[in-house]
Amino acid sequence: MAHDIRIVTETELRQAVGLNPKTVDVIEQAFRVLAGGGVVMPPIMSMDLHMVNADVDVKTAYLPGFDGFAVKMSTGFFDNPTLGLPSLNGLMVLFSATTGQVRAVLLDNGYLTDLRTAAAGAVAARHLAPRGVETAGVIGTGVQARLQIEAAYLERKFRRVLVWGRDAGRAQLCADDLAATLGVEAQVVENPADLVRASQLVVTTTAAKKPLIEADWLHPGLHITAMGSDTSGKNEIAAEALALADLYVADSAAQCRVLGELRSAVAAGLWRDRPVAELGQVILGQAPGRQGEQDITITDLTGTGAQDTAIATYANEAVTRHQAGTVISV
Amino acid sequence: MAHDIRIVTETELRQAVGLNPKTVDVIEQAFRVLAGGGVVMPPIMSMDLHMVNADVDVKTAYLPGFDGFAVKMSTGFFDNPTLGLPSLNGLMVLFSATTGQVRAVLLDNGYLTDLRTAAAGAVAARHLAPRGVETAGVIGTGVQARLQIEAAYLERKFRRVLVWGRDAGRAQLCADDLAATLGVEAQVVENPADLVRASQLVVTTTAAKKPLIEADWLHPGLHITAMGSDTSGKNEIAAEALALADLYVADSAAQCRVLGELRSAVAAGLWRDRPVAELGQVILGQAPGRQGEQDITITDLTGTGAQDTAIATYANEAVTRHQAGTVISV
Repeated sequence: MAHDIRIVTETELRQAVGLNPKTVDVIEQAFRVLAGGGVVMPPIMSMDLHMVNADVDVKTAYLPGFDGFAVKMSTGFFDNPTLGLPSLNGLMVLFSATTGQVRAVLLDNGYLTDLRTAAAGAVAARHLAPRGVETAGVIGTGVQARLQIEAAYLERKFRRVLVWGRDAGRAQLCADDLAATLGVEAQVVENPADLVRASQLVVTTTAAKKPLIEADWLHPGLHITAMGSDTSGKNEIAAEALALADLYVADSAAQCRVLGELRSAVAAGLWRDRPVAELGQVILGQAPGRQGEQDITITDLTGTGAQDTAIATYANEAVTRHQAGTVISV
Repeated sequence: MAHDIRIVTETELRQAVGLNPKTVDVIEQAFRVLAGGGVVMPPIMSMDLHMVNADVDVKTAYLPGFDGFAVKMSTGFFDNPTLGLPSLNGLMVLFSATTGQVRAVLLDNGYLTDLRTAAAGAVAARHLAPRGVETAGVIGTGVQARLQIEAAYLERKFRRVLVWGRDAGRAQLCADDLAATLGVEAQVVENPADLVRASQLVVTTTAAKKPLIEADWLHPGLHITAMGSDTSGKNEIAAEALALADLYVADSAAQCRVLGELRSAVAAGLWRDRPVAELGQVILGQAPGRQGEQDITITDLTGTGAQDTAIATYANEAVTRHQAGTVISV
């Protein structure tokens, strides 16, 4: 019995799916399901290809209630810029969750990952940031710095955004882009301490291996979303800050213990047997969230296969509705 | 910089790539490289979806000297026949080993796996079967039963083939097919003992969970290739037979300890600290092979990501040469 497979390029995906409240709802639903049980999410499959300065990651997850599941392949070949090519490439394959047949091949080169990562930031802001956010701050100046602030703005209409990065020129470009996109005041600050102290919502988006945020910069009424750490070598927030916060929330407790900010706190002996709440549990009311405007909250996002399955399913619906891509009958 | 991605269906792949000496050479080369070092092959990623009677496997491997690497996704949804669909589906994605860009999406539904598995059987026969094979035997009656015997015939021109399966009707169909394809005498036998005793080359191709071949059926001048076991619950050959053979050879020692016939022998306490030779080491002369016509040899094939990368690279060359498939510029 013949069936159709839709092949969709990055350009076609960008036309059909963007960062908006609907996308955030889809990713929120992934967190809900992740906390609700029945999700099958194996550990990430990785190849460290140091001989060619590259790495390859494969993620997948089966989510009850979703009619598809995705396998995501991400490649990072870090000498590519010398060939005039981007370092990061990859795709998602969407399978039917009922028959295992291939439904779609989404040649997104990481676009859908950028989107679901930003949307997860919005979900964190929706459920954990204080209601009143005047100033948002972002540490880092890349694609996710921009997307995370756009995502946060979907949930909290701040008046001003502060940007800090190691390269002041790139920080200025990022601030200019955000001012243009969101129509808010955007300023570069000289150090991350000033940024954290002046903000009610901070997002860290770097590949830092040593903490950029110190515990004594924390202040009442602050929410931090740390989305940079996704391997066991990375660390953006001091272990003491995690211990000090009123609430720490993981996207996946098991994964954050190995890959997230939590890893460093555990390694430093500052976590011990304290239980770890997951974002989905907070959404479902199974774990306490922010108790008041003055709480200090931290969300640790390492990125899950569940989000990939959710965004791939949603993207496939969107491109099918747009009749985008190339349909192959097999 | 735009580049092309070739999307190829199973039908197109079947037209471009088949089981022949060149395919066997390609898979032999994969074993050579696997033994030579520098291969990166992570453990298989699996999802057991028992709630929908299904499983999903993902394999990959990077092979030095190959210009691509494959990620293979295999799905088994065992209620599909009630919908009139095959249980097994899947595809391979071929990436450039230099840039990480997607080169090809091979929608093979397991065809390339069938091919590389059969070719591995031919490699085992090439290097380990006695020179003089009058009678070959196959245990099992499915696709691999046919392909393994065709593959063995590429290496040893036997005069007769014996077939045993639990279902005598299916065994007869398999024998008829083999007689027609190879032009040899083909007979169904009543029990596996008779088959093993009368054959110089035996291939086991079942999903058995209890041994089908007993140790006291072994005889001088016998080679067995066991290709059925690929998960930790399967077992085709008695542990005592492995211990008794003059030579046992794994496709991957690490994998056979967990997924192959070797697992049961180790669990039975019949292997202890005996070293395990790999097929690639035998090919390279790094480990002793068959020492004479009277030796008893066993090869344990669990299937490796290295074979997938090799067959995907080769298939992509073939379909490119045939200008087969749909080319998408991204």
